[in-house]
Amino acid sequence: MSENEIRPIKWSGENLELLDQTRLPREEVTVTVGTYQQAVVAIRDMQVRGAPAIGVTAAYAVAMAARDIEVNGRQEFMAQLEAAACEIAAARPTAVNLQWAVRRMVDLASADGDVDGIPGRLLDEAKRIHLEDEQINRRMGDYGKDLIPDGGSVLTHCNAGALATAGFGTAIGVIRAGWEDGKRFQVFNTETRPFLQGARLTAWEFQKLGIPSKLIVDSAAGLLMRQGKINCIITGADRIAANGDTANKIGTYSLAVLAKENRIPFYIAAPISTIDLSLPDGDQIQIEERPEEEVTHLQGVAIAPEGVQAINPAFDVTPNGYVSAIITEAGVARPPFLESLNLAVVGSTHI
Amino acid sequence: MSENEIRPIKWSGENLELLDQTRLPREEVTVTVGTYQQAVVAIRDMQVRGAPAIGVTAAYAVAMAARDIEVNGRQEFMAQLEAAACEIAAARPTAVNLQWAVRRMVDLASADGDVDGIPGRLLDEAKRIHLEDEQINRRMGDYGKDLIPDGGSVLTHCNAGALATAGFGTAIGVIRAGWEDGKRFQVFNTETRPFLQGARLTAWEFQKLGIPSKLIVDSAAGLLMRQGKINCIITGADRIAANGDTANKIGTYSLAVLAKENRIPFYIAAPISTIDLSLPDGDQIQIEERPEEEVTHLQGVAIAPEGVQAINPAFDVTPNGYVSAIITEAGVARPPFLESLNLAVVGSTHI
Repeated sequence: MSENEIRPIKWSGENLELLDQTRLPREEVTVTVGTYQQAVVAIRDMQVRGAPAIGVTAAYAVAMAARDIEVNGRQEFMAQLEAAACEIAAARPTAVNLQWAVRRMVDLASADGDVDGIPGRLLDEAKRIHLEDEQINRRMGDYGKDLIPDGGSVLTHCNAGALATAGFGTAIGVIRAGWEDGKRFQVFNTETRPFLQGARLTAWEFQKLGIPSKLIVDSAAGLLMRQGKINCIITGADRIAANGDTANKIGTYSLAVLAKENRIPFYIAAPISTIDLSLPDGDQIQIEERPEEEVTHLQGVAIAPEGVQAINPAFDVTPNGYVSAIITEAGVARPPFLESLNLAVVGSTHI
Repeated sequence: MSENEIRPIKWSGENLELLDQTRLPREEVTVTVGTYQQAVVAIRDMQVRGAPAIGVTAAYAVAMAARDIEVNGRQEFMAQLEAAACEIAAARPTAVNLQWAVRRMVDLASADGDVDGIPGRLLDEAKRIHLEDEQINRRMGDYGKDLIPDGGSVLTHCNAGALATAGFGTAIGVIRAGWEDGKRFQVFNTETRPFLQGARLTAWEFQKLGIPSKLIVDSAAGLLMRQGKINCIITGADRIAANGDTANKIGTYSLAVLAKENRIPFYIAAPISTIDLSLPDGDQIQIEERPEEEVTHLQGVAIAPEGVQAINPAFDVTPNGYVSAIITEAGVARPPFLESLNLAVVGSTHI
């Protein structure tokens, strides 16, 4: 693994060390998270963001909660752990990986008769989730890299890179696997208003990786597609319903509609933990509404007149009909997604 | 006319007084333009922007050029005037109103045998173009207001308001005419990256007008459309080809595609001076590429890592198939636009 590898989440033995993503690329600052409550704040304030990275952080948060519970007795311990788990799972509503990781941790504790050993085993499980996530991303890269057109161009939205995961990345992981495979291509990446994950984080990652990328405003993607300058689009996902409807960063739906109109393949790259088979379709996915100030202000400076109202939905849902394929660690799922995603989740083997 | 009326362009008798649109809404500062060269800079740097407002400014610029020519003799005078006119017309490439106004002024001078009287008559003509523009906007409002759904919602992009014209506005003029007609509705307006005309200028205009508006990032428009929250879309235009293909602010094409996908009517409001019958379709419209720094920096502060490359196309072209109607001062043109626009331009009477 290269020294240049981006590691947004590190476990120090006692604390979680998070690369503060609100301050990149201006400063590379680490924030120390020593309690589950601090982890909730870091997730809510987007110091750590990206569905898989939130999942890993949540797993460590549950482990820290277990470590810090001071009661004796299994019932009381589990009651307190469940309460902390609820708080962690509610830090952000849209990405299902958060709930998935919390559920996996709590289920492990529930099945464990030896209450004194639970904190240690939960920490081991969090480390396992952390390690697995990067391995999963690399497998997604292997499966997805064949979809990258050699000599062409790829558009990505938001940040689905190393920073959004335990490392390597989902959508950017696939792009990177294609590059490491010897393919050469041009990347375009949207700035991704209002939080500017594209301008601040994705552009920074591609710079570190040495992959040529050009930054565009979100609304310029349509023009490039119509001009024939985009050969495929790859984004990450925050929650995928059983039928393939996909919640992802606001603007993803627009890109997918424009891709279909211009006959450009539109791919999602996401681990199986992002697939929520409990939802038949995307209509029930809760869309997080974030503060107006993220739209009206930028780095603390007002960019709109005082008193202007804004709405700030953080995600949208792309209906399955606009999605060409979903790249998972079990293989590339193609329509009809109801079948292929079920195979991926249940089998977790090559589909 | 209310005291609150926004006047982006005033002629003081000697100079042009422009409301500096790069500094709104933080400061309401007037920039004094005393020569045609200063007018070229003001247009290029977007202190004055919006196709009709650029046209009016260009007309005064030609008048100032004529006033300041110090030679005698008709031939030499016209040669110098033509040279200045070329410079003015080249200040920005996409909006045709600029070229239209310059051509109208030069044609008037060309037809005038009395060289000494030309500067005075050109100034009168610039004042006429200035006055006409607001009257034209009000006529567009009268024709277009019936398209605004009472009790519904309207989305607009960029700024096609009083600030983009001599006053009143094109797209915002239509919205305003609907409001003044007693209709009640919700406006959504995009922030319009990178220059933030929506966040800075349109939000400011709606505040002054007392029309309820909500600001969204550009990429949130698709979600709102899919949620059924948008009943129609109205934008301005910078150049309209004979077949109705329309160049307008970057992102317009995306909105139009999303509107069609969601069965939402998509309207353009633009004066006849924006229609360029010399172009059969939009393929030959030159798309202005503006500096990368408008994307990588905001109000002088870097929002992307140093050294990141960006591309910054300022406009896109929306093919006629996505346009439901074009609102002009001669009436509402509907498909097939080749016929209806020709009628509007040639007849300049109700279509």
